Amino acid sequence: MQKTFLIATHNEKKKNELLRILSPLGVDVKTDKELNLTLTEAEENGETFYENALIKAQSGCKESGLPCVADDSGLMVDYLAGAPGVYSARFAGEHGNDKKNNEKLLKLLKDVPESERTARFVSVVCCVFPNGDIISARGECEGKIGYEEIGNGGFGYDPIFMVDGKSFGELSAEEKDKLSHRGKALLQLSEKLKDYMSL
Amino acid sequence: MQKTFLIATHNEKKKNELLRILSPLGVDVKTDKELNLTLTEAEENGETFYENALIKAQSGCKESGLPCVADDSGLMVDYLAGAPGVYSARFAGEHGNDKKNNEKLLKLLKDVPESERTARFVSVVCCVFPNGDIISARGECEGKIGYEEIGNGGFGYDPIFMVDGKSFGELSAEEKDKLSHRGKALLQLSEKLKDYMSL
Repeated sequence: MQKTFLIATHNEKKKNELLRILSPLGVDVKTDKELNLTLTEAEENGETFYENALIKAQSGCKESGLPCVADDSGLMVDYLAGAPGVYSARFAGEHGNDKKNNEKLLKLLKDVPESERTARFVSVVCCVFPNGDIISARGECEGKIGYEEIGNGGFGYDPIFMVDGKSFGELSAEEKDKLSHRGKALLQLSEKLKDYMSL
Repeated sequence: MQKTFLIATHNEKKKNELLRILSPLGVDVKTDKELNLTLTEAEENGETFYENALIKAQSGCKESGLPCVADDSGLMVDYLAGAPGVYSARFAGEHGNDKKNNEKLLKLLKDVPESERTARFVSVVCCVFPNGDIISARGECEGKIGYEEIGNGGFGYDPIFMVDGKSFGELSAEEKDKLSHRGKALLQLSEKLKDYMSL
């Protein structure tokens, strides 16, 4: 699998994760900067992770002429009927940030007992080819929402997402990639890409 | 437009609304009981209102051999990133009910100021024909979540959904149908059906 793939994301921390996970899998991934491109920010107005990942990958493929990989991901909290879901990044409003999102979620779940704090991180990754072909994969990671932010690693909801007594914010990059929704989705994607490219 | 349509829903109150709105629009609608059928309950495992409405209409059409109309609808609360959405009926769990759903939502929004209590009711209606054709329509109704249940009319979240200072639970059937998400979706559907049937 020699082909160069473009990664389409404007989130630097997510870009690093995508590069970190995909590179050792034999997928040659480049950012728009490395390719001297500036991608326009596609409007993520889909109702599902799949739709949003597809919007981003299609837009990146069209602008670059290269096969393009994009991820859409979020946190689904059972007590909130799957929210914040596709709105995870904007949960505390357009001018929010990770800290405000986490604070809002912790406040909403303030009186909710441990047994009802179940949640999952979901990642859908899509690769769109210039001929229009689409390869996608989905990864999930089950956990619980904690009671406070713990750890300085990761990003987004990582500090309040607990798996086996540890928050995602406490894990090393390697530990996180092994467990995480994005790690699982990208591993599956890379296997599908290998099959597809060897056709 | 002479053809008989089957309405697929297991919710008696929703069935009444569908019959009440569609009949005067010249659509000849029948329930499964009127047609001496017993439809199996289709599993609503879609991620969107459209997917769920389609699942129900396709299942009803397949079992009856008739064109089948189904609705999927729910409440999207902005503060909760669009939740409960497709999970509206099950918001307080599988053994919940309208009262428990309303109580849960009011509690979650307890300290949320009026300006951030915006919400919308959404209804997507689908009609599936035995040849596989699909006609769909979407209706929305903007409102705010109140602070307590008001009124004995309607069903679901109606008593806490406020439009122009009144809850949906306070409206007469005629007032509700004129404003409501389902009224708008069904009006649009009936117009599309008329065009489709006269082809």
